[in-house]
Amino acid sequence: MVLATHNKGKQREYELLSGNAPIALRGLSEFEEVPLPDEEGRTFEEIATKKARAVSMMLGVPALADDSGLAVEALNGAPGVLSARYAGESADDYQNNHKLLEEMRGRENRKATFYCAIALAKPGGLVLNYAGRCSGIILDEPAGAHGFGYDPIFYYPPLRKTFAQLSPEEKNSVSHRGQAMRKFLNDLERILTWLGDR
Amino acid sequence: MVLATHNKGKQREYELLSGNAPIALRGLSEFEEVPLPDEEGRTFEEIATKKARAVSMMLGVPALADDSGLAVEALNGAPGVLSARYAGESADDYQNNHKLLEEMRGRENRKATFYCAIALAKPGGLVLNYAGRCSGIILDEPAGAHGFGYDPIFYYPPLRKTFAQLSPEEKNSVSHRGQAMRKFLNDLERILTWLGDR
Repeated sequence: MVLATHNKGKQREYELLSGNAPIALRGLSEFEEVPLPDEEGRTFEEIATKKARAVSMMLGVPALADDSGLAVEALNGAPGVLSARYAGESADDYQNNHKLLEEMRGRENRKATFYCAIALAKPGGLVLNYAGRCSGIILDEPAGAHGFGYDPIFYYPPLRKTFAQLSPEEKNSVSHRGQAMRKFLNDLERILTWLGDR
Repeated sequence: MVLATHNKGKQREYELLSGNAPIALRGLSEFEEVPLPDEEGRTFEEIATKKARAVSMMLGVPALADDSGLAVEALNGAPGVLSARYAGESADDYQNNHKLLEEMRGRENRKATFYCAIALAKPGGLVLNYAGRCSGIILDEPAGAHGFGYDPIFYYPPLRKTFAQLSPEEKNSVSHRGQAMRKFLNDLERILTWLGDR
């Protein structure tokens, strides 16, 4: 199935997460240029569902889409579905992290939750949804070089490290995306049957 | 299919919403006492999915579950998944509305969004998810006698009325639950095929 993302960080994590499963995930880059729908939906589930449905229809193959983001309690859930472009339309990870640290300067409540919504669509068919979440603390400054996005400033108390200080395997074992993907993989046998039906 | 709820207000809205569809919704009260799982999940989707899966497994029939709630911006998304028991475990609508009005006293930002997550499970099978949302304003005092839950204090600007001042049909035409249910009904033909498969 095609993984409906242009995000290399997400693609690496999905390849690792699906390593032993009897499915082959192919990135969008292997297909001709596919424009993703605008990320106008307000919830992670909505956006992932729209993406999966649009890509599976355009390409005529099953499509798995992921919409994820960080919701910070003191910021009323921001950056939320705008996580990837918090500092602007073409912002990179550094700029987004910088903006979030500025917004959080001096705030006492530093609780935040990463959310991940996965949607699987088959062409003209129904959509399956899976979700995961992981809570932690926003640090005052970045630490660690692994991962992507807000990983360097997201401290995960049970492991006493930021997500960027964890190996990819360690991150996947606890992360929002790892949890959502494990739910997906738990259903895999039934999913493959469903994909094979008419 | 069985509608996995003990909430009479939800049941009435689903009966109205599914009026012309070729499905029959039967309330949980028509079955022997079925304990619903604890509402421990943190997102509406998670809770609806858990409910639908548990009830369909216990009864051996397809189950539709709804988890809904009101997220108030100034309260960081509260009462959220705790909407039904905001004022305590056995709180009624009056007590919940009263508590929310107290929490909102003197606050300028009165924006709030109703969310509805629907999950449909078949026994031992996959789960389908649908969602809807509707944004409005929390009033200073209740108005209207229709609906249930927070409807009397939720003002919907496009119609210049609270949800409790709308007829059931008017509310369903714009509400979070109406939107989620219309997405469900749009997929109905494929859903019925899916329910009929092995």
